[in-house]
Amino acid sequence: MNMKNILIISGHTDLAASVANKTILETLNERLPEAEIVKLDELYPDFKIDVEAEQQKLLRADIIVLQFPVFWYSAPSLLERWMEETFRHGFSHGSTGDKLKGKKLVLSFTTGAPEAMYSREGAMGYTIDEFLPCYKATCRLCQMEFSGYVYTGGVSYGNRTSPELIEQQKSVSEKHALRLIELLEKISHR
Amino acid sequence: MNMKNILIISGHTDLAASVANKTILETLNERLPEAEIVKLDELYPDFKIDVEAEQQKLLRADIIVLQFPVFWYSAPSLLERWMEETFRHGFSHGSTGDKLKGKKLVLSFTTGAPEAMYSREGAMGYTIDEFLPCYKATCRLCQMEFSGYVYTGGVSYGNRTSPELIEQQKSVSEKHALRLIELLEKISHR
Repeated sequence: MNMKNILIISGHTDLAASVANKTILETLNERLPEAEIVKLDELYPDFKIDVEAEQQKLLRADIIVLQFPVFWYSAPSLLERWMEETFRHGFSHGSTGDKLKGKKLVLSFTTGAPEAMYSREGAMGYTIDEFLPCYKATCRLCQMEFSGYVYTGGVSYGNRTSPELIEQQKSVSEKHALRLIELLEKISHR
Repeated sequence: MNMKNILIISGHTDLAASVANKTILETLNERLPEAEIVKLDELYPDFKIDVEAEQQKLLRADIIVLQFPVFWYSAPSLLERWMEETFRHGFSHGSTGDKLKGKKLVLSFTTGAPEAMYSREGAMGYTIDEFLPCYKATCRLCQMEFSGYVYTGGVSYGNRTSPELIEQQKSVSEKHALRLIELLEKISHR
């Protein structure tokens, strides 16, 4: 099956300490070797983004996947920095900025809290979708297509107190990666 | 009038290049000299947050103001980093983390795009309130009270092409600061 060019941006600030995000990326690397995976924490531990290099990666991509753990109901600071620096006026937006036009954006994210907490009645007071307008508005301004998300909750640091629990987090993370690949295959043919 | 202890965290990544946020902070400094103003871009140009120092500032405060320009419909990366690092499990949240309990959180932010664009029918497709669930959920998790926001739109970099336009941005920014002080006085007595 011919997939479009896929760029996966990992926004975790410390992948070495991660289970879920690390497992998702490893699974994607095995199952989707043609995708380009960018690990921001390896490239930019000092938060100094190489704007030109990152813009070139975006230009090559048909589908852009943002892979991140949700920190304080938002993307990690490092991913925000990547976006602030790379999505520049005249490149991604503004009257002459149309370099991302027509590209598809997919979110792939995890939360420490279980999915059930994300509801009006739950501990968070909001559904997970209510935290996504910023990405959808970004797509709108940059003329990208918001092409959905894959989400896994309940993969917290605090819940890794035994080898069994770590294995369980790895297992749901592998399934997450397979769900993401399924979505990518579907939108590759639209 | 006795105001409670107010901590103002400036999240702009480059205040020297700012008009609106700089003017707001200067006005607050003049009119509200008892408030503690923290400029993250001066303290942490390398994004390396002094967690202990920042937690001490939070402990002293009754009211915490986050002052920032909206970048990509979110807080700037530097403010996100401050929050990721400072709001730690066992300090701000978790079964033994109640150090922010009862404190009030106020948002004070600006957007480059005019306020009218922030509507369901407008260019952004969302109201400004639809971008705020992350702050409200943060308050909920940290047992803080979300105490409202002061907002000014239309203060973009692109719209500073003449001395008159810069003066206009300064003027709305001063008014913004006065509206913020009014809100702070009101919630100081609740």
